[in-house]
Amino acid sequence: MASSPESAGPAPFVYRRRVEFAETDMAGIVHFSMYFRYMEEAEHAMWRAAGLTIAPADSAIGFPRVAAAFDFRRPLRFEDAFEVRLTVTNAGARKIRYEADLVRGDDRIATGTMTMVCVRKAEDGSMAAADIPPDIRTALGI
Amino acid sequence: MASSPESAGPAPFVYRRRVEFAETDMAGIVHFSMYFRYMEEAEHAMWRAAGLTIAPADSAIGFPRVAAAFDFRRPLRFEDAFEVRLTVTNAGARKIRYEADLVRGDDRIATGTMTMVCVRKAEDGSMAAADIPPDIRTALGI
Amino acid sequence: MASSPESAGPAPFVYRRRVEFAETDMAGIVHFSMYFRYMEEAEHAMWRAAGLTIAPADSAIGFPRVAAAFDFRRPLRFEDAFEVRLTVTNAGARKIRYEADLVRGDDRIATGTMTMVCVRKAEDGSMAAADIPPDIRTALGI
Amino acid sequence: MASSPESAGPAPFVYRRRVEFAETDMAGIVHFSMYFRYMEEAEHAMWRAAGLTIAPADSAIGFPRVAAAFDFRRPLRFEDAFEVRLTVTNAGARKIRYEADLVRGDDRIATGTMTMVCVRKAEDGSMAAADIPPDIRTALGI
Repeated sequence: MASSPESAGPAPFVYRRRVEFAETDMAGIVHFSMYFRYMEEAEHAMWRAAGLTIAPADSAIGFPRVAAAFDFRRPLRFEDAFEVRLTVTNAGARKIRYEADLVRGDDRIATGTMTMVCVRKAEDGSMAAADIPPDIRTALGI
Repeated sequence: MASSPESAGPAPFVYRRRVEFAETDMAGIVHFSMYFRYMEEAEHAMWRAAGLTIAPADSAIGFPRVAAAFDFRRPLRFEDAFEVRLTVTNAGARKIRYEADLVRGDDRIATGTMTMVCVRKAEDGSMAAADIPPDIRTALGI
Repeated sequence: MASSPESAGPAPFVYRRRVEFAETDMAGIVHFSMYFRYMEEAEHAMWRAAGLTIAPADSAIGFPRVAAAFDFRRPLRFEDAFEVRLTVTNAGARKIRYEADLVRGDDRIATGTMTMVCVRKAEDGSMAAADIPPDIRTALGI
Repeated sequence: MASSPESAGPAPFVYRRRVEFAETDMAGIVHFSMYFRYMEEAEHAMWRAAGLTIAPADSAIGFPRVAAAFDFRRPLRFEDAFEVRLTVTNAGARKIRYEADLVRGDDRIATGTMTMVCVRKAEDGSMAAADIPPDIRTALGI
């Protein structure tokens, strides 16, 4: 609605998940490194929902991360059901940036960002920056 | 030395590590979430070197993360030997912030930051902010 | 059916899962240690389906593993959808043993077993063998 | 020595390790899936000590697991220093089987086994059984 600035922009992609036992640590809460995996799982689910896979078996194109960050507000615990709400906040010719809101019911748990670049892998394993293929841009609507 | 501005400040704590097979992913490089674990391992090694453990068996004090971030420059691969150079860049009464430079030989691989707060855990599992105990501040020199 | 000996016994609990990117390694397949986590996730889903949680927040009862094993037949790859079919094959007063068949469509991927014992945790962190609480036995039908 | 039956056979390869925080779970002990990673780390250290790497960057040879098992006797906790004592107990033309004793001081923590086969990877990603290359057999003394 016009009067609701926070509703501007596209609706986030929503990925639902439950905390598994092995994701907790001796402090009784989810280890902070897991949030980055949750954010990535949401990204890959978003790509699948767009008819894509981020890592086709025969592809020379890859998307290594160049930056990732999280602010943590509240802990997550074993068997908590939560959502990752993922949005593409910036997309250039060779780069995609996401924002992720991790929520459990009405509780805001954490907020993250992740930036990746498109690379073309050579046969020797080296990588060079490359344009994001047009079919991927179209499917993601970016 | 006075003529070397990059040598200002205390020397970083150096933690040495080798990449293990299970830390790689199908892209053939270390998964980006692992860097956060490497940074944490360096932190805990720094605490041990100061005669401390960050998680004593009988302690009500804990140090949950409130923020963590990494910029990734180059990939790490299986069996790469690397260092995490860790520095406390900010220490308040209830908060510690670290910076980590991850290097492999002369290559700068990644740079991270991590901020944690001191909390006191109640018997019901809830946590409340608390001052960092003086003996910890003294041992860490912060 | 009476003529089908392999259908004897209770139907297995079925847990559905998809392979996540971080679960693969540089060989391009799921790391073998992940199968044990998949088996455990299936176990905890089975307990939830029975109205239980295997790790209540305030419980002194725990279920450490005493044995776990897997035979691997075929690899799993990124985004493969698969099932863990889990059965309790042996339940004593203080012990539960599971078998897990991991399948992808018609492919049998791996077969595992896992045995755990019931323990009571003392305040000093030590553990002593204990009988499985009757409400748990009833809910699981063992 | 002739009077010491337990000293028969070659001395095990010894890999030393400390438990990291992220390897613990909410039960306050190392998650059982980690023991398989510890055993694998010991294997790769054994190969390095023999002048080998188990996953050369340009190799079509791989060693997927066909079986892995552990019996767990005592828990491991955060910052415990322990050893994995690894022995090749069986080596065929295409298969290697290891046994691992995981010990902390005088405490026997766990005993594991792991069997892998040698495969040759085709360009389409499929794998076929292959003989272990002679230089690897020589270096490992099997």
